[in-house]
Amino acid sequence: MLFLSEQNIKEAVTMKDVIDAIDATYGIYETGKFQMPQRMQVKEDDNTLLLMPCFTGDAIGTKLVTIFPNNQTLPTLHGLVVLNDSETGDIKGILNGSFLTGMRTGAIGGSGVRHLAKNDASTLAIVGTGVQGFYQAIAACTERPIRDIYLFNRSPEKIAAFKKSLQEWVGTDISIHANDSVNEAIKDAAIVITATTSKQPVLPDNPNLLKNKLFIGVGSFQPAMREFPESLFKIAGRVMVDTEHAIEESGDIATPIEKGWIDRESILTMSEQISDKSAGVIEEGKTVVLKTTGMALFDAVVANLMYQKAQEKGIGTNLTM
Amino acid sequence: MLFLSEQNIKEAVTMKDVIDAIDATYGIYETGKFQMPQRMQVKEDDNTLLLMPCFTGDAIGTKLVTIFPNNQTLPTLHGLVVLNDSETGDIKGILNGSFLTGMRTGAIGGSGVRHLAKNDASTLAIVGTGVQGFYQAIAACTERPIRDIYLFNRSPEKIAAFKKSLQEWVGTDISIHANDSVNEAIKDAAIVITATTSKQPVLPDNPNLLKNKLFIGVGSFQPAMREFPESLFKIAGRVMVDTEHAIEESGDIATPIEKGWIDRESILTMSEQISDKSAGVIEEGKTVVLKTTGMALFDAVVANLMYQKAQEKGIGTNLTM
Repeated sequence: MLFLSEQNIKEAVTMKDVIDAIDATYGIYETGKFQMPQRMQVKEDDNTLLLMPCFTGDAIGTKLVTIFPNNQTLPTLHGLVVLNDSETGDIKGILNGSFLTGMRTGAIGGSGVRHLAKNDASTLAIVGTGVQGFYQAIAACTERPIRDIYLFNRSPEKIAAFKKSLQEWVGTDISIHANDSVNEAIKDAAIVITATTSKQPVLPDNPNLLKNKLFIGVGSFQPAMREFPESLFKIAGRVMVDTEHAIEESGDIATPIEKGWIDRESILTMSEQISDKSAGVIEEGKTVVLKTTGMALFDAVVANLMYQKAQEKGIGTNLTM
Repeated sequence: MLFLSEQNIKEAVTMKDVIDAIDATYGIYETGKFQMPQRMQVKEDDNTLLLMPCFTGDAIGTKLVTIFPNNQTLPTLHGLVVLNDSETGDIKGILNGSFLTGMRTGAIGGSGVRHLAKNDASTLAIVGTGVQGFYQAIAACTERPIRDIYLFNRSPEKIAAFKKSLQEWVGTDISIHANDSVNEAIKDAAIVITATTSKQPVLPDNPNLLKNKLFIGVGSFQPAMREFPESLFKIAGRVMVDTEHAIEESGDIATPIEKGWIDRESILTMSEQISDKSAGVIEEGKTVVLKTTGMALFDAVVANLMYQKAQEKGIGTNLTM
């Protein structure tokens, strides 16, 4: 059994590898050849344990996540992915699930950038400078020749550390700007990624500030959470989701349908967008929206990729059961 | 995070430690202060993944088990237990779940021997010489001055290897006998433990061969499985289960109730037997039946004990996430 820490995973795979795995996952999603039951949730007081198993055809991946919202010094989330062989059930690997989730969620955004952003997009705004925003920025830089990154966060004091870590990762060829307002941050950005847990839209409800950009929403994973304003849906040339589940799970899609801002039928999944030629090419310069909430199939495919790459490179700690 | 292999667990705890943990688990079971949802089952063709989480109050334990019945060379079961801190959700440990299950199932039998067998019981019969029967034998020897062990298996060629391994574990002071018939194996035994997956009773339906013994049934975990014959219930002075679930889960209890051989009301749980003085002392020499099917609460309490003992003794592999 192979154990892969955050450091091991960083050495084993690049963000581009993980984005490739996300695209491969859309291919599996389109065939329907996988088993992904509804996740199991165990609650005690404010704390939650989530169990998210998935049979991909090539592997069995199970993500375990604890959510302890009252943690003061430790992170509120702790995650682990257990990888079993799909032929024998044998336990192949155990991976740092928190880091894997950050990488794969970043890569879902990165796949969106790969397929939906203008080829020469060089400007990126990140709204919400938390863990998820960090990997989103890295993934976007992997897919387009980004020169400028604009950062906005509701608590501005959190931007400095984020900026420093991001600069170390992406290198000094990219300029990173801390902005005082969201309007300023998105003004010149071709790609806008929101990664907050907001219950009210974090973007201005002003079509002039939104038009002709690609928007990727990462934050809202519950019906009561919402990052995108009404006018974004009025001007959007296409609205996409990473999975069908996002339509009910996220207030960023459920609310616009409920209010009649978009037709449910007009929403495409990314797997349809990528695989189905009839979805058509997105007209250059159109306003495009991608909303992602993730699924266990991503985790299992990505965990198997990380395992395989680590095996090839001799990375990780081999453990005897 | 601490990884504990089979070898690590053997060094960290004794069977007596685990039997103590089983008795402690009955105490927790009696208070009702735990969270143990129904296990999650994911199936693909003949293969199954089981997820069994439990909040004990002191820890969160999740057992993952794969069951691949068509495995030829590898075991059909692979198991892992993930242990999280109940205060922070942090991942504390990962343990070999197959070995843990063997130890804790043995210890459930061992606790039965501790509380229900005659003090001077020195003879033991094991019917079914598989993995479970092995740990049952060890646990029984821990709790009573066993001098003779009688073995019976439907496929007699499997007894030799079992006998050899068991002799190594229990030492040469105990005589181990391979028997050709179940009647011969149980004839002189004060304690009879059945650990088969039989659908028909494996013990003779003859009260003269059954009376005045302690019977512990480990094998039947489904309504269609049954090891105990009708007459055992006619002569039993007390019938016990490890948990309420066993009453519906096991054909060894469900069938006798359905057929009217026992009243459901007369069945006691081990936690009642141990904690409730009104259950009363079992009259010396009475025929006693204990049926166990296990539960995730046992796994979580035992995993936490193994983790704590290993920490104290500096055993296991420390992994950085």
